[in-house]
Amino acid sequence: MDSAALLDLLGNENRRRILQLLARKPCYVTEISEYLGVSPKAVIEHLRKLEEAGLIESRVDDQRRKYFHIARNVRLEVNVSPYGFASKSAYPENSSFDVTTCRHLSLDVSWEGTDELDDLLRALEDLEQLENELSLAQRWVQGRLCDVLDQISETVGAGPESRIYADLLASIRSDPKSVGKLSADIDVPREIVAELLEAMADEGIVQRTERGWELTTNA
Amino acid sequence: MDSAALLDLLGNENRRRILQLLARKPCYVTEISEYLGVSPKAVIEHLRKLEEAGLIESRVDDQRRKYFHIARNVRLEVNVSPYGFASKSAYPENSSFDVTTCRHLSLDVSWEGTDELDDLLRALEDLEQLENELSLAQRWVQGRLCDVLDQISETVGAGPESRIYADLLASIRSDPKSVGKLSADIDVPREIVAELLEAMADEGIVQRTERGWELTTNA
Repeated sequence: MDSAALLDLLGNENRRRILQLLARKPCYVTEISEYLGVSPKAVIEHLRKLEEAGLIESRVDDQRRKYFHIARNVRLEVNVSPYGFASKSAYPENSSFDVTTCRHLSLDVSWEGTDELDDLLRALEDLEQLENELSLAQRWVQGRLCDVLDQISETVGAGPESRIYADLLASIRSDPKSVGKLSADIDVPREIVAELLEAMADEGIVQRTERGWELTTNA
Repeated sequence: MDSAALLDLLGNENRRRILQLLARKPCYVTEISEYLGVSPKAVIEHLRKLEEAGLIESRVDDQRRKYFHIARNVRLEVNVSPYGFASKSAYPENSSFDVTTCRHLSLDVSWEGTDELDDLLRALEDLEQLENELSLAQRWVQGRLCDVLDQISETVGAGPESRIYADLLASIRSDPKSVGKLSADIDVPREIVAELLEAMADEGIVQRTERGWELTTNA
């Protein structure tokens, strides 16, 4: 599911309350309707949307009554900053995460395939704590990203379009590029790319060589 | 801003498109209206909501035209799983994160207060990579949490209310508690807490002593 569809779904308070309820325990339509104080018809419509999106599923009990439960893990992250608006969603169960390939991060959790209850409860506590630490770390990174982008803007004397300046500079830092290649790389029209490069060339920040545009050596 | 208010705001596609546009560059109402293909009146209403929430701000240029830009960093995280529905939002700039206090996490980034352009661009690249690694790690943790909760359910023979079982057990693991204290701790009615404890006592998972309810030693 893409993050836009997920945001559309979660943008409704009653759908959020339904998910909160189902995360506690599976429910029948009548239970949800009573708990929310919303008509069964409206509840059914919300459930339909959540089910279509794959967030919930239904089963039928011994009395042939249909009840709903949350179907799978979904994670959504949204960052809003003066330098970007990004949202992403993912299904954790498909995560092929290998911490040993991380360059900037290492984890220490006692996660082993244990089936002793006491070990499982300890693993639960550790994982919940790690989740919280990761969340704090992400806030820290987002704050530092903003600081770095502020400093880049200041260094190159960029005004309001400073995110584009930073993307341009980051793109040519390790590899000189033509205007066309840059335009495709950072998804900005050629004319604007050309204009910004000329402005930065006047400031002595970038230069054009036979290999393309690159940072000047004293930048 | 609480996460519910943020989800309400971001649940609208045109407001998301406005934020995407403003993250690129500050804009006038007419620019936004043309870009979105939406009437200036509707744009003004969206901008009002975003401004009230503190996500955007306006300034007036030399020609006294009002233009809008993103005001601050906001981060939103939502987890949906069969064991929980949680959303949280935070302002990264207020983050008092100290990585040295993390028990399960360590970071390695070359973040120093540098003002050399090349160093800044390298810091930008490192931070963006770390951001991605943290995001993958969080998906991994969410998946593992779900695995652990599945195993706990299986071990205690819990049915659909298994999250409550796990919360109960986690709460008494290190510290025996009374029904009343447990009910307050995990925010579940006393009757239900008492009923689940009795059921688990029958299975030999928990026991009642003079200190309160606790895990049985062979659990």
